[in-house]
Amino acid sequence: MTPTITAFESSPDRGRGLARDMRVRWALEEVGQSYDVRLLSFAAMKRPAHKAVHPFGQIPTWEEGDLSLFESGAIVLHIAEQHPGVLLPKDANARARAIAWMFASLNTVEPPIFDRSLATFLEKDEPWFEQRLARLDSMIALRLGDLSAHLGDADWLDGDFSAADILMVTVLRRAQAFGALEAFPTLAAYVARAEARPAYQRAFADQLAVFEAASA
Amino acid sequence: MTPTITAFESSPDRGRGLARDMRVRWALEEVGQSYDVRLLSFAAMKRPAHKAVHPFGQIPTWEEGDLSLFESGAIVLHIAEQHPGVLLPKDANARARAIAWMFASLNTVEPPIFDRSLATFLEKDEPWFEQRLARLDSMIALRLGDLSAHLGDADWLDGDFSAADILMVTVLRRAQAFGALEAFPTLAAYVARAEARPAYQRAFADQLAVFEAASA
Repeated sequence: MTPTITAFESSPDRGRGLARDMRVRWALEEVGQSYDVRLLSFAAMKRPAHKAVHPFGQIPTWEEGDLSLFESGAIVLHIAEQHPGVLLPKDANARARAIAWMFASLNTVEPPIFDRSLATFLEKDEPWFEQRLARLDSMIALRLGDLSAHLGDADWLDGDFSAADILMVTVLRRAQAFGALEAFPTLAAYVARAEARPAYQRAFADQLAVFEAASA
Repeated sequence: MTPTITAFESSPDRGRGLARDMRVRWALEEVGQSYDVRLLSFAAMKRPAHKAVHPFGQIPTWEEGDLSLFESGAIVLHIAEQHPGVLLPKDANARARAIAWMFASLNTVEPPIFDRSLATFLEKDEPWFEQRLARLDSMIALRLGDLSAHLGDADWLDGDFSAADILMVTVLRRAQAFGALEAFPTLAAYVARAEARPAYQRAFADQLAVFEAASA
């Protein structure tokens, strides 16, 4: 059965692949699973029909037969579990560590990065804007410094490429969009390594096509 | 083999059970697994020995034989997976939905709540403090409103009590600490229902004993 995901009808990132459907698209390309996309306006996301699938009225979601899911991290984990050995190691300990990095991407590294994206959008006219950015930037630098130290010379977060790298790289790309990786060449190289994967490139092209069609 | 977790030697919440080791303690009590605790000072958390286990220098961590993990969400999921049918449903679709709620707790509901706790601690003398709180409070109310609508008359997030309820309730208790549940009686009742569980009470008493011993 072909799953259906949801994505922004008109992405606020103008096709840069920063919206959270990118993670799900990339995971699906890595495992070779085709999928359908249902595009939603911001208004449609907040309507009861969508909130029945996503209680917080966001994208992406996942629908496959009688299963519906929300939260990009959970959807990527679900895809990985359906294809053992591709996006999660088969070894039990290595699998548990990869899942730890999935949570770390979304609960430790993403929050200050997402806050900064949001602040530049919502708080840019406030008198405190520069001070607020400085505070966020120092928190982000702390996290990125720890991550860079962990990564060192390794290609991926923990052994082979995994679902955790999909989540972490999509988080880092958002930081890269406001220049935060310039001080961390190890992380910039990690992102570039991931972006060179054919599965990434197919997913990126597909989300870009949505933006281009919408703005044509 | 008895696992070892880490926790604050001196918790900033003064024994209110808001630190993230509480989630792990509670999950372990729910499955009936005994454990050891290693207490860490803030200085020790940032030293290389601990950062080898937790790259971001935080608590809790999990050590069991040759497996070490970090991130409370990942540790709770690991415990749940070791005890099928207790903290995660055996049915595959119900299990995937419970995991979606685990990610929702930590990536959608927790970030603005955690930001507000942090802001009252770090930004209280800043000129923008009142406006910043108002902005966070409105984001928190949006999330809590959606969550309350989802919960409705149900006891738990999705069918039986699960690991997702452990994460969500610990997130909501942090919001309750600054009064954010007063407008959401459904959520206050949900937290009270969880706190009445014997496993919760044992976990709470154990973390409180650490605070009381440290301040004796």
